[in-house]
Amino acid sequence: MQDTHISLAHGNGGRLMRELIEQVFARHLGTDQLDTRVDAATITLPPGRQMITTDGFTVQPLEFPGGDIGSLAVHGTCNDLAVSGATPCFLTLNAFIEEGLEIALLDRLVGSVARAAAETGVAVVAGDTKVLRRGEGGGLYLATTGVGVADAGLSLSIANIRAGDKILVSGPVGDHGIAVMLAREEFGMRGELLSDAASVIPLTRAACATPGLRFMRDPTRGGLATVMHELVHGTGLQVRLWQPAIPVRAQVSSVCEMLGYDPLYLACEGRVVAVIGSESSDRLLSAWRALPGGQEAACVGELLGGRERVVLETELGGERILEELEDDPLPRIC
Amino acid sequence: MQDTHISLAHGNGGRLMRELIEQVFARHLGTDQLDTRVDAATITLPPGRQMITTDGFTVQPLEFPGGDIGSLAVHGTCNDLAVSGATPCFLTLNAFIEEGLEIALLDRLVGSVARAAAETGVAVVAGDTKVLRRGEGGGLYLATTGVGVADAGLSLSIANIRAGDKILVSGPVGDHGIAVMLAREEFGMRGELLSDAASVIPLTRAACATPGLRFMRDPTRGGLATVMHELVHGTGLQVRLWQPAIPVRAQVSSVCEMLGYDPLYLACEGRVVAVIGSESSDRLLSAWRALPGGQEAACVGELLGGRERVVLETELGGERILEELEDDPLPRIC
Repeated sequence: MQDTHISLAHGNGGRLMRELIEQVFARHLGTDQLDTRVDAATITLPPGRQMITTDGFTVQPLEFPGGDIGSLAVHGTCNDLAVSGATPCFLTLNAFIEEGLEIALLDRLVGSVARAAAETGVAVVAGDTKVLRRGEGGGLYLATTGVGVADAGLSLSIANIRAGDKILVSGPVGDHGIAVMLAREEFGMRGELLSDAASVIPLTRAACATPGLRFMRDPTRGGLATVMHELVHGTGLQVRLWQPAIPVRAQVSSVCEMLGYDPLYLACEGRVVAVIGSESSDRLLSAWRALPGGQEAACVGELLGGRERVVLETELGGERILEELEDDPLPRIC
Repeated sequence: MQDTHISLAHGNGGRLMRELIEQVFARHLGTDQLDTRVDAATITLPPGRQMITTDGFTVQPLEFPGGDIGSLAVHGTCNDLAVSGATPCFLTLNAFIEEGLEIALLDRLVGSVARAAAETGVAVVAGDTKVLRRGEGGGLYLATTGVGVADAGLSLSIANIRAGDKILVSGPVGDHGIAVMLAREEFGMRGELLSDAASVIPLTRAACATPGLRFMRDPTRGGLATVMHELVHGTGLQVRLWQPAIPVRAQVSSVCEMLGYDPLYLACEGRVVAVIGSESSDRLLSAWRALPGGQEAACVGELLGGRERVVLETELGGERILEELEDDPLPRIC
């Protein structure tokens, strides 16, 4: 393959597409299980409840401190399975590649998909590439679909939640949103902050092993506050968050203050929110704090009866209602 | 939902996104199996060999005679399972929606996804939407991932193919490519031609029931000629196609002549190419011709020993080597 940049002919089903798939995608992702010559892959799921999820990725820039669109596409989808109590087994990958994208960059990103998949223990078993005309693609969009299995006896559902249950978050919120925003250098700001993008599987596994676990979610688009609104919608209870307890890094706070963002609405890509019976919340907190990525886990609130809304108890003893997200603070964050 | 067009806020995880998902996606696709509030869906696959495939769709225009990007996204992925011998069971859907897209159009297209899924007997069990900034999206891109099961005893593989095997195509080639091209009205041409986009499941089921079936493929991007190159690459044999036997509609031929396209390289979206032992080819041909969509099925060539290439035996008794596709005759055709 002599070309340095993607052309429309890389998407037409002919020789250049075959070479791109062989020399970039199959070279990184190739295993016994990825046969680029078949229309569909055979998979063998272990016993258990079969689960599936899918996610699209449009983050800009494609590479940012702490991650890139490739690792994000693996972790985002695997994390959706993980917070559902499942172990991810297989992934499929769709790439929408814009004409003009540097092939060296594409190669790095597909390499990142492969590393993240290997770390997570999933096999990429099928894929598809399309080439978009220059100006119609934003560089690269990815979509990943994940299939996994959960313990047949495990029942995680928003319907399990009861008044008095506690809300835990596995680490500081808003790192991903601010790290990506700083990487854009739009506001003349730079920073050392890394995205939290990572697999949450060790955290969700520990949570599933803790009695009293009701429900988990990863606070991606819309952040912690949006998950809280889902809890209110799904339970009819009131959510009370304790602002001083919510972990937010100093750099995230200060950027948010400067730009008028609220870190509670910013995307995380490696955090878990868990709802657990109050008798078990300390146990899960200890388990999380002993794990990499969980050292700053915190119990940040609880669900109670009362008017259906999300209330933030502030540092000074006041209360603030957190509304459902309306404007988009940071588009193309995931 | 008051808005008539997609805005960035429809992708931010907040209220507008929730309303878009509820009022457009869930309204059309909602079943017991699509719960838009969960991170991952539980599926229960019937017994058999589990298979998975994925495909991206960027066709332009989004609606064309005989189909649209919605039905295409269902059939394209289900057909990839079907030609692999599997029955599609579950689909996931990713939508990358460009800011400014008319919501009424999106609604029609999601309705088309739902109708095609119902016709095909698959359930859309998970999905994701992302909104792309104006100018970065081409209206709408879709990706679908399909999971299905095949008879554990069925073995379809290019490795099964032997010299002497026959090549069948289930109907005229190039209809989809030319129908989409005409819908663009780029060349000042219009036509009545319909895309062949459709489910091939009845055809592949009949083929799987025919002894001697070696391998199937749907001739999408790159058309019949590209499938023939895959046969050559995968078998080390020579493909000989009989030009007079290849069904091509008059309107497709005449547009191709005017514009210098070769119909053998144009995409079909509802055809099957089957390779079958010569003793069974008449039997499959009869079975196909008795089915809707198969009336014009034909035996178009065979695999033989000799130099590894694709040879077209022309009407006048000459021979033409069909090269692997280089240029993209029609971008964004699927």
